[in-house]
Amino acid sequence: MDFTMRPKAQEILDKVRRMVRDEIIPLDHEFLAEVGKGADRFERTPRQIEILEGLKAKAREQGLWNLWRTKALTGAGPDALTTVEYAQLAEEMGRSHLGAEVFNCSAPDTGNMDVLARFGTEAQQRRWLDPLLAGEIRSAYLMTEPDVASSDATNIALSAVRDGDHYVLNGEKYWGSGAGDTRCGLYIVMVLTDPEGDKHRRHSQILVEPGTPGIEILRPMEIFGHDDAPHGHMHIRFTNVRVPADQLLQTEGDGFLIAQGRLGPGRIHHCMRLIGQAERALDLMCDRALSRTAFGKKLADLGANHDIIAESRIAIEQARLLCLKAAWMMDTAGPREAAVWVSQIKVAAPRMAQQVIDEAMQMFGATGISQDTPLAHMWMNARMLRFADGPDAVHRRVIGRTELRKHEAG
Amino acid sequence: MDFTMRPKAQEILDKVRRMVRDEIIPLDHEFLAEVGKGADRFERTPRQIEILEGLKAKAREQGLWNLWRTKALTGAGPDALTTVEYAQLAEEMGRSHLGAEVFNCSAPDTGNMDVLARFGTEAQQRRWLDPLLAGEIRSAYLMTEPDVASSDATNIALSAVRDGDHYVLNGEKYWGSGAGDTRCGLYIVMVLTDPEGDKHRRHSQILVEPGTPGIEILRPMEIFGHDDAPHGHMHIRFTNVRVPADQLLQTEGDGFLIAQGRLGPGRIHHCMRLIGQAERALDLMCDRALSRTAFGKKLADLGANHDIIAESRIAIEQARLLCLKAAWMMDTAGPREAAVWVSQIKVAAPRMAQQVIDEAMQMFGATGISQDTPLAHMWMNARMLRFADGPDAVHRRVIGRTELRKHEAG
Amino acid sequence: MDFTMRPKAQEILDKVRRMVRDEIIPLDHEFLAEVGKGADRFERTPRQIEILEGLKAKAREQGLWNLWRTKALTGAGPDALTTVEYAQLAEEMGRSHLGAEVFNCSAPDTGNMDVLARFGTEAQQRRWLDPLLAGEIRSAYLMTEPDVASSDATNIALSAVRDGDHYVLNGEKYWGSGAGDTRCGLYIVMVLTDPEGDKHRRHSQILVEPGTPGIEILRPMEIFGHDDAPHGHMHIRFTNVRVPADQLLQTEGDGFLIAQGRLGPGRIHHCMRLIGQAERALDLMCDRALSRTAFGKKLADLGANHDIIAESRIAIEQARLLCLKAAWMMDTAGPREAAVWVSQIKVAAPRMAQQVIDEAMQMFGATGISQDTPLAHMWMNARMLRFADGPDAVHRRVIGRTELRKHEAG
Amino acid sequence: MDFTMRPKAQEILDKVRRMVRDEIIPLDHEFLAEVGKGADRFERTPRQIEILEGLKAKAREQGLWNLWRTKALTGAGPDALTTVEYAQLAEEMGRSHLGAEVFNCSAPDTGNMDVLARFGTEAQQRRWLDPLLAGEIRSAYLMTEPDVASSDATNIALSAVRDGDHYVLNGEKYWGSGAGDTRCGLYIVMVLTDPEGDKHRRHSQILVEPGTPGIEILRPMEIFGHDDAPHGHMHIRFTNVRVPADQLLQTEGDGFLIAQGRLGPGRIHHCMRLIGQAERALDLMCDRALSRTAFGKKLADLGANHDIIAESRIAIEQARLLCLKAAWMMDTAGPREAAVWVSQIKVAAPRMAQQVIDEAMQMFGATGISQDTPLAHMWMNARMLRFADGPDAVHRRVIGRTELRKHEAG
Repeated sequence: MDFTMRPKAQEILDKVRRMVRDEIIPLDHEFLAEVGKGADRFERTPRQIEILEGLKAKAREQGLWNLWRTKALTGAGPDALTTVEYAQLAEEMGRSHLGAEVFNCSAPDTGNMDVLARFGTEAQQRRWLDPLLAGEIRSAYLMTEPDVASSDATNIALSAVRDGDHYVLNGEKYWGSGAGDTRCGLYIVMVLTDPEGDKHRRHSQILVEPGTPGIEILRPMEIFGHDDAPHGHMHIRFTNVRVPADQLLQTEGDGFLIAQGRLGPGRIHHCMRLIGQAERALDLMCDRALSRTAFGKKLADLGANHDIIAESRIAIEQARLLCLKAAWMMDTAGPREAAVWVSQIKVAAPRMAQQVIDEAMQMFGATGISQDTPLAHMWMNARMLRFADGPDAVHRRVIGRTELRKHEAG
Repeated sequence: MDFTMRPKAQEILDKVRRMVRDEIIPLDHEFLAEVGKGADRFERTPRQIEILEGLKAKAREQGLWNLWRTKALTGAGPDALTTVEYAQLAEEMGRSHLGAEVFNCSAPDTGNMDVLARFGTEAQQRRWLDPLLAGEIRSAYLMTEPDVASSDATNIALSAVRDGDHYVLNGEKYWGSGAGDTRCGLYIVMVLTDPEGDKHRRHSQILVEPGTPGIEILRPMEIFGHDDAPHGHMHIRFTNVRVPADQLLQTEGDGFLIAQGRLGPGRIHHCMRLIGQAERALDLMCDRALSRTAFGKKLADLGANHDIIAESRIAIEQARLLCLKAAWMMDTAGPREAAVWVSQIKVAAPRMAQQVIDEAMQMFGATGISQDTPLAHMWMNARMLRFADGPDAVHRRVIGRTELRKHEAG
Repeated sequence: MDFTMRPKAQEILDKVRRMVRDEIIPLDHEFLAEVGKGADRFERTPRQIEILEGLKAKAREQGLWNLWRTKALTGAGPDALTTVEYAQLAEEMGRSHLGAEVFNCSAPDTGNMDVLARFGTEAQQRRWLDPLLAGEIRSAYLMTEPDVASSDATNIALSAVRDGDHYVLNGEKYWGSGAGDTRCGLYIVMVLTDPEGDKHRRHSQILVEPGTPGIEILRPMEIFGHDDAPHGHMHIRFTNVRVPADQLLQTEGDGFLIAQGRLGPGRIHHCMRLIGQAERALDLMCDRALSRTAFGKKLADLGANHDIIAESRIAIEQARLLCLKAAWMMDTAGPREAAVWVSQIKVAAPRMAQQVIDEAMQMFGATGISQDTPLAHMWMNARMLRFADGPDAVHRRVIGRTELRKHEAG
Repeated sequence: MDFTMRPKAQEILDKVRRMVRDEIIPLDHEFLAEVGKGADRFERTPRQIEILEGLKAKAREQGLWNLWRTKALTGAGPDALTTVEYAQLAEEMGRSHLGAEVFNCSAPDTGNMDVLARFGTEAQQRRWLDPLLAGEIRSAYLMTEPDVASSDATNIALSAVRDGDHYVLNGEKYWGSGAGDTRCGLYIVMVLTDPEGDKHRRHSQILVEPGTPGIEILRPMEIFGHDDAPHGHMHIRFTNVRVPADQLLQTEGDGFLIAQGRLGPGRIHHCMRLIGQAERALDLMCDRALSRTAFGKKLADLGANHDIIAESRIAIEQARLLCLKAAWMMDTAGPREAAVWVSQIKVAAPRMAQQVIDEAMQMFGATGISQDTPLAHMWMNARMLRFADGPDAVHRRVIGRTELRKHEAG
């Protein structure tokens, strides 16, 4: 088990770290404060465009672009990063709000680009993959539905019926993350094509152009009351939406297969970004503990505060190492073998981040949940990730079954 | 130890329960959805006024008004409720967002009214207590300051200097809850009158009319990004604010004394309202567990869900009983003896509520953190109460010292 | 809900408290240190007999005898204690190792006496109940079996086949607590009489004289390596043991019915004794925190120790109140309604005690797990009670189902 | 960061694993069951000698001897194992009770041998190091004292006064692990040589021959009531014990320096052995979950059991990775830099093991705490390690201070 960064990767890491610290974090707050200043919360303001596109240009100049294309994904050649290496970059990006997008590494685009690269036709790739790789459009992945427990993906019910050389889509999706973005140029939609088929061959994935007639954006879903504009987690209704049949990914029934490969790396990225957020929360916690005085002492020297800081450090280190292990499994044993490791981090990392950020908030007093620190925002993100890409309970189920299977065999 | 409700109190409880369930909860969502529809987020909309004043009128008609005036507070006569009895009413009110205000029982008004009733002059009472009791104005209690660790109240620094028959106030307060409300007609302000005096005689409390020249509302403090309009937790600057000296409460140096008596009952009310919220979260959790299906089973029958429900039940019962014990101490031994019991519930109840609501959110999947349930709102309220009226660490310190003192003596 | 002690009960409580503190605790250690000094670990030494019988005599003299006979059990008359009152006595007894037996209130005898009083014939009562009430013999309750998951009592398999006017018993029981005691004069045995019958009518309970031919004591079960001599938790084999048919309790098939009523009060007693142990652990913790110095400070003033003490206090109070609530339900609503409350405390109290005692051990450093404090012994007892009378998971299942049933109905 | 085993180390690992599984574990129980069968609990029985020496001979034959001599310790040459490699061997050894001693890798001997190799004179090494390396004698490390909080080592008070060419020792030590062993041929004793000196130069370490006149073994300290014979954690009194001055290690005042270097690797070994124990507990838990039936289902399929197994797996993996990280720091950055990492695992690993073993016990029902599984024994060992080599609180303090120091600088 080897988590070493090669010198070349280390060099990239240093650049990413510097850019996050010196250029991105200083603009995060201003970017977020712009939300709602335009006519429409989901229309980016000129200043938001200036901030983001400016940073993207700088990233591209330094070659810090599409770094997610690891060997395990669609990367190739001796220079492609390993998942272990990229994970450490993702941690740095996670310290800032805008980081992932600046380096064209944000969810759900990376997963969608990977799907297109693996499973798309030449035509599909030219139409959607190229502008995604260029950072010109963004995309959404529509899986979760309001009326069924989507954590059991066999429940997915949005119907796609073949009619001539089109599929006709009817149903609803929600939590379509990124679908609020005015630049969103693609939905990858999990649909039910064969309701009577074998449980894991009933579904397909289809590429849908936003704005196709019959698509109605009902509302943004809110996370603790926030619409997360201009990104947005949209609730979308499909009513007789006609999609050309050549926009299907692979063949009918491949929906599960495609979905399965898609989620592993994305979960590692999410988790490593959370590690970055937890580190930042611990930084803030320590700074506050040293700079604030009560009862005649620094907060650091009061009560359990040393212990809280120590436990936060231990928790972060353990979660990071487990993420790296999952990344290493992805690199060396492939996504199928890595899956149970990814489930482990999907349980461990968001919970850890939630806990560490919560302690940081507490160290700040009421300021910790206010607009004066980024902690509340970070906490909500961590909390949301205990649902996104599968709730904890489903991942624990996977881990438990895998463990028991070893003993059934023996 | 006796937590019995007398028949008369039980009758009130039944009425409150019915009104909360049948009339208030059904309007909560509409009231909240109105926020931001007016010109100013802090200006109540006509529909908000209609909802709230309508409910208040109904409450008053049924005699469900100012129920907080227990014997332990300014109530009197054989009919006054005990703290134990009122606590059980507060639980019911807590199940809804508007409940407390509908019955003229909301924070910080109840504490402020109590202070006026105990410590106010006749003139002060006529000017502010009467309209508060009538539900015509609201009030704020300005204690916390941005620049000092206010959990140690000896740090409070907003200066009040005597100048003729006025005090001149300079400094800042934040988290002035309720100061955003356009009906807010009174600030009770903790001020530093004698910086060189004995540590517990340096401060005073003074009644300030909002809008007095020199008062500047800088911004609402946000709780997880929410301004809590039209209530508001305001950040306020005082610049040479001249306040008539007869608006001082009692005499100079009594600030601590007044503060100490004020917080105990309010904390019990907060905690009991949280019990109500936790009960509602458990209701929602169970309903979801029974109505949603995954992997061929009701959620209720999957994995640890029975255990989660059981642990939630145990946690709620324990917290409620401890709150009742604190209330009983307030009734029978008085606020000084009750203080350490109040500290216990102040640690236990918000944490419990936070945990139970968190589990309820998780049972719902991502819907649990969305606008489709009241859970996210309830969770943020519980989280905030781990700071409000003293952070957990300060209360634990009080409890620990009390415990150790028994052994030092022995 | 009323937990008040009547003056008469309070008087008894004061006497019990004094006797535990002044006479029993000072002899606990010597009693335990005698174990193994005789020829046989299960033969009480002369000094053990002297200690125990001396204390029993003193208890009887003061009328502190068979206090467990509450109204809810076989007590009667206006003077009988309520379960709520007795629970508070049990807490005091629990502070010492010998307490419960000194007052003739120890498990499993109280449950067995209650069963005999309710369900025994006149002849059965004269033969076994009278000497049990007099503290002359002791008894065991044989339920758990090594080969089946006995937490699901329908699994119980020890066979009792009618043969003329005898039953012939074959099978094994283990964890027969008290069966190691040389004074043990009765086994109440749960047996399978009708393997094909209705699931809850298959079993019966039968009174068995220890020493009946065919009974073989295989070994004492060990708790963390301790045989708990001279009490003992025995593993017993029955081979063609012939028991007169008139020793059956009630009629065939009543086994469940009898078992059900038996366990509720016993669990309350166990839990309240654990509260007593937790209080004693907290006492010890505080004393150590004040008397030991490291890094130039009292332990009390180092790190999280105030917080640990505070959390222990909160945890004990909550568990005690919940136990009293369960006792109050037993008194006012009866055992069937109280059952789910008993399940709640059965989960909450041992876990709480285990946690508080664990923290106390940690405060002592390695001394905390050594023979120099009673903490290790107390901890093992608390841990054992997470299995005895039903493991946590089974109780959580009961609570969860009860909670869900409220919502299924609604 | 690289945790790779070189092929040669992997080969050793495979051999160790096989020997532990096939030869050591099958004899563990018999060895332990022999305790107390001789005249003296601390006199090994012939069968114990046969078992242990037989296994040691087999280990030596295969070259599995003194494997602890890593490069970071006194090992040298290209073939010496790294700490990372040895840690993985220690995990395997930890699965069994006798494992560590079979490979001559048990505490406190490894630490003592290392001290002798680094700091001993030629004469000291010939007299004590050689027979220790040969597995002919064993040793104890006497640090902890009953009368002072020894977690703060500056408290150590056992006095050594120079008198001619001897030191005269007076005082008490307890928890002298291994001092009960009849083969114990050396005490390394931390003594106070200069009470007035600089805080970290007051102490020295001296080599003492057991049986020197004036040494009195008062009693074995018990761990949850167990004397851990024939190893023993002895309480020892020194009364005017005259020790030749040339048995001092290095020079007067070096006591701290020697102690500091000693404990790091030993803690890593302890923690990795606990990982092995936790893995074995999880194995047992899974086997039980699959083989036992209640309420018509395998335990595995009841309630939270999948979740419990999953959480155990996650906890073990995280702790193992953190131990390997600490080992890697020891290898690459040296003991001073590694210290805070060692503190992290010292907090995390015993707690994790305690928790996983506790869950395993619970899965077994009461059998889990009985002599029918090794779980209770393993649990007590894990619990003890939350004190041994520093209690959790002291390690958290180290971690917290290190973390804060980063921020004080910045």
